[in-house]
Amino acid sequence: MLYKLCLIGCGNVGQGLLEILHQKANFLKRMYDFEVKVVAINDKLKGSLILPEGIQLEKILKILKEGKKISDYKEGNLERNKELEALETIERCDAQIVAELTYTDIKTAEPATSHIKKALETGKHVVTSNKGPAALHYRQLSALAKRKGVFFKIEGTVMSGTPVFNLFENCLTGNSIKEIKGILNGTTNFILSKMEEEGMEYLDALKLAQSLGYAEADPSADVEGYDALAKVVILANVLLQGEIKPSEVRREGITSITREEVKKAREEGFRYKLIGSAKRKGTKIEASVTPQKLPLQDPLAQVMGAQNAITFETDLMGKITIHGPGAGKIETGYSILSDMLSIHRALCTK
Amino acid sequence: MLYKLCLIGCGNVGQGLLEILHQKANFLKRMYDFEVKVVAINDKLKGSLILPEGIQLEKILKILKEGKKISDYKEGNLERNKELEALETIERCDAQIVAELTYTDIKTAEPATSHIKKALETGKHVVTSNKGPAALHYRQLSALAKRKGVFFKIEGTVMSGTPVFNLFENCLTGNSIKEIKGILNGTTNFILSKMEEEGMEYLDALKLAQSLGYAEADPSADVEGYDALAKVVILANVLLQGEIKPSEVRREGITSITREEVKKAREEGFRYKLIGSAKRKGTKIEASVTPQKLPLQDPLAQVMGAQNAITFETDLMGKITIHGPGAGKIETGYSILSDMLSIHRALCTK
Repeated sequence: MLYKLCLIGCGNVGQGLLEILHQKANFLKRMYDFEVKVVAINDKLKGSLILPEGIQLEKILKILKEGKKISDYKEGNLERNKELEALETIERCDAQIVAELTYTDIKTAEPATSHIKKALETGKHVVTSNKGPAALHYRQLSALAKRKGVFFKIEGTVMSGTPVFNLFENCLTGNSIKEIKGILNGTTNFILSKMEEEGMEYLDALKLAQSLGYAEADPSADVEGYDALAKVVILANVLLQGEIKPSEVRREGITSITREEVKKAREEGFRYKLIGSAKRKGTKIEASVTPQKLPLQDPLAQVMGAQNAITFETDLMGKITIHGPGAGKIETGYSILSDMLSIHRALCTK
Repeated sequence: MLYKLCLIGCGNVGQGLLEILHQKANFLKRMYDFEVKVVAINDKLKGSLILPEGIQLEKILKILKEGKKISDYKEGNLERNKELEALETIERCDAQIVAELTYTDIKTAEPATSHIKKALETGKHVVTSNKGPAALHYRQLSALAKRKGVFFKIEGTVMSGTPVFNLFENCLTGNSIKEIKGILNGTTNFILSKMEEEGMEYLDALKLAQSLGYAEADPSADVEGYDALAKVVILANVLLQGEIKPSEVRREGITSITREEVKKAREEGFRYKLIGSAKRKGTKIEASVTPQKLPLQDPLAQVMGAQNAITFETDLMGKITIHGPGAGKIETGYSILSDMLSIHRALCTK
């Protein structure tokens, strides 16, 4: 089956996805009868392109790698080869699937939410790794997708391509979740690991994270817990059927944790971790992001460096923990492929 | 959608499944439009029963709990209420799904393989937690299922209901697996944990495992690595598309590991684990079950007690580890429900 795909946003994740699609085209066709033709790409900074006959992946990847504009792609119908707004691209292209890969704005969830709405309203499946729309408007967007008979998939919003939502939907179905607890932010986990393993001060570990590209120049989204908070909201609303807002989540970052506290905890058999958690209490959801001292036997205590992990406490299976990468170009690119393959499985058994 | 189910074997796993189906009936119907009517149960020791109008779960669970015979169930068409052989039960009942839950015989894979063949040949889906047929005849039985247009599902053969095969099939699709490494036997992991944590000698830890019901009176299937070996063969043949036999797997148990070795390893920052592993080398599969000293940072080193875990090393996602229960009445019972829900999803999107 051939799927026509439109990419909105073509930074790291978009390019990771294009690389995978290029590299794995034959494998995906042979193993799963799954083919993708990229018919449109739009990026706010890099320009846009609609090409119904399909964009050559090798060629566009080269252009992007060289830092050129997407519209420098010279081939096919050049009339379509002009700068378009994202909404116009979504409306005009004849893709069946739109991948929304623009940057997360956790306060407004825009422009991603408008992109997703436009795609769903025009009958296109949407796959996204953008945390904004999933954290602020999951229920509304899911309902819209359902009305339009299309899918709205968000695997990449938490732990990149490490299975979380698809894990629960496809492999733990029938369980009720009592509690979700996770290490949801790789940057803070890297900093805490360095503070413990190498006895670094918080600020030195932060600088190291910045120099390695794990942390932004303004690190507050990570170290103050906002990134983990958005993920907790998504987990609570999707997997615990909650309707909570970011403001309802208790949040504390890692900025006030000292090297001495980390050392003392370790001597007592504990390890500091920034833990995002959510559970149901009656009709309410209790959710928080806080630094916690975990006993070393806890599977989450053993997640070191930039890795992520989530423990689901379920009624039938007890505790199930999944541990894997929480970020990365290829890893998050794969989350988009993973969701497209889910859509493919659902459609091709129809 | 209503599914008529036949249970072959009604020990721990069968009763675990019946308990879940009883307790979750309303939930499964409301959430997934999934209903099960148990129309036949056959157990070599406990007798058999075919009841097309459906067996009342509460009543049969009470009979089983009291140690009575399945044929003591007095209701419905009593003509059907007589002792039948398993093969006769499979043939005569009008179930759509057969759950094969008899005891594993890893040398012959019988009588389970005959049960499964009969079920597939008569057009019934098969779900099993029996390692014998999956280890010795997976390819042949899958091919038969395919010809007959039915499913052959084996989630419970490795790590009980903790997702392994469904995880890969539904959530990591598109990845190539480079290597599979796991702690696949809870009994040996419990023994090794006790030797380390409480400084016990091997034989004392074994006795404790036996007294807690983790190990059999004849513990060789566990401690000599045969149970883990069967699981390695299944993982290699299902997930690495191998065709290996148990005799091709290098095997070493834990019986010669001493308390001193465990202690010394720990002091050097390592931990003994019985590791099952499989990887492709060219056209061949390399597979083994051996005690290994893992560095403490390895996610598998942190799996303590009777828990199990598997690390998949993949091309796109790097290392993904799943950690959860490896055995248990409800946990293995759930593996059967999990596979039935997979079949349901595939059928109801048709």
